[in-house]
Amino acid sequence: MPDIGGSTRLYAVLGDPVAQVRAPGLLNPVFARLGLDAVLFPVHAPADRFGAIISGLQLISNLDGLLITVPHKFDACRYADELSPAAALVGSTNAMRREPDGRWYGDNFDGAGFVAGLRSAGHDPRGKRVFLAGAGGAGTAIAAALLGAGAAHLSVFDPDPDRLSALTDRLDRSAPGRATGSGAPRLHDADVAVNATPLGLNPGDPLPFAPHRLPAGAVVADIVMRPRETELLRKAASLGLSVHHGIHMLDHQVALYRRFFRLDP
Amino acid sequence: MPDIGGSTRLYAVLGDPVAQVRAPGLLNPVFARLGLDAVLFPVHAPADRFGAIISGLQLISNLDGLLITVPHKFDACRYADELSPAAALVGSTNAMRREPDGRWYGDNFDGAGFVAGLRSAGHDPRGKRVFLAGAGGAGTAIAAALLGAGAAHLSVFDPDPDRLSALTDRLDRSAPGRATGSGAPRLHDADVAVNATPLGLNPGDPLPFAPHRLPAGAVVADIVMRPRETELLRKAASLGLSVHHGIHMLDHQVALYRRFFRLDP
Repeated sequence: MPDIGGSTRLYAVLGDPVAQVRAPGLLNPVFARLGLDAVLFPVHAPADRFGAIISGLQLISNLDGLLITVPHKFDACRYADELSPAAALVGSTNAMRREPDGRWYGDNFDGAGFVAGLRSAGHDPRGKRVFLAGAGGAGTAIAAALLGAGAAHLSVFDPDPDRLSALTDRLDRSAPGRATGSGAPRLHDADVAVNATPLGLNPGDPLPFAPHRLPAGAVVADIVMRPRETELLRKAASLGLSVHHGIHMLDHQVALYRRFFRLDP
Repeated sequence: MPDIGGSTRLYAVLGDPVAQVRAPGLLNPVFARLGLDAVLFPVHAPADRFGAIISGLQLISNLDGLLITVPHKFDACRYADELSPAAALVGSTNAMRREPDGRWYGDNFDGAGFVAGLRSAGHDPRGKRVFLAGAGGAGTAIAAALLGAGAAHLSVFDPDPDRLSALTDRLDRSAPGRATGSGAPRLHDADVAVNATPLGLNPGDPLPFAPHRLPAGAVVADIVMRPRETELLRKAASLGLSVHHGIHMLDHQVALYRRFFRLDP
């Protein structure tokens, strides 16, 4: 890590809680390797204070970028002057940068990072039937990216019917007929099954879906990063299914952040 | 420097400009030596945005303290729920901490740090006649601390008569009859002469006062830290006077900050 001095440029990651975030451990070494005098620090921003905190941070002259995590990705859109197509489609942003003209531009790399991770592990979703559990922020971003990457069909499960239909309506506008919603997991014909819920973060969580109902040869992917081996992935592995860990999504976002924040020489 | 992770506690130093601040280079190594998972970063806060920036920072749950430098030390008092006697006397604060009950407490260590530095160099101001150039933020804090430390007499020079009388009125309330203001430097009978103006920061600055008019044996102290050897100190040394560098004020503030921020085990 480079020494911090008066000329250091700032990046912050905002969440509530924030203790679990991996971004400082991933991006500060990148700054150091690139010889950049910059630091990324965690900002614990309770929901009722998020607006004042992000507004204040955006006014700091030596702060160049923000990462946004749970539960602020939706609300953060209000603090962007412009959104990327991906962020606008999912209605949430997880990365914002100050443009040369001072405006704040928001993008969302959750979906792109997840798909890049899948591809690099040899699980290209193109032409595949995908099951996705969770129509929240991460689920929405991943659903849009999977369809954008050419998934043949996407079946989304969420116990909240309003959230589910909001997502499928949105997906239907960008990829008509390729996504369906369901109040019960549709697993029997899935090539890839993705957990995009927080289930698995805490010991004792129920499984987000039952991996034994998947066909042989299916890939089970989790977005939960801690623990690395979730109960879902352990069960899937014991059934002989391929597993794909949550950390890949973040690993592959680092390359996207480097480009987004214009860190590379 | 410790690695920054999601659980790292935050401290910030606010100024405009901020590139010159020494606090990150002094305090981050202290955090590391004490084994604290904490980081101090610089915040470039333009004056017209200072209120929104400091208010936002104070709402961050994992931010425990703020240092304030030029030109915000006066304005920062508005963002403290309570001021120490030193901060209240000089009407400015350069260090604020979050109390266990969530309130923000502001103190001012400019004067105490300066006096501690003088003492540790063998120049105890007790009983001495002191000349001070500059009735701004630093000058005000140093004037109050010098009188508090038992200086026999303090002569303050500032070309701005309003600023000068505001300071001497204030000093007269806490130490009646021991401080006088003057529109011209009173040097001939000074034991200690202090530059508390920014003159010397930039090459080509005029001298804040003429050291050759001081009596033999006088001590010349500067609060300018960069360059270390200001023109004033060079001239004073060439005249055979004792010199006292600006960095001592900050060095001795570090110990005060450690206690103020409750860093020590």
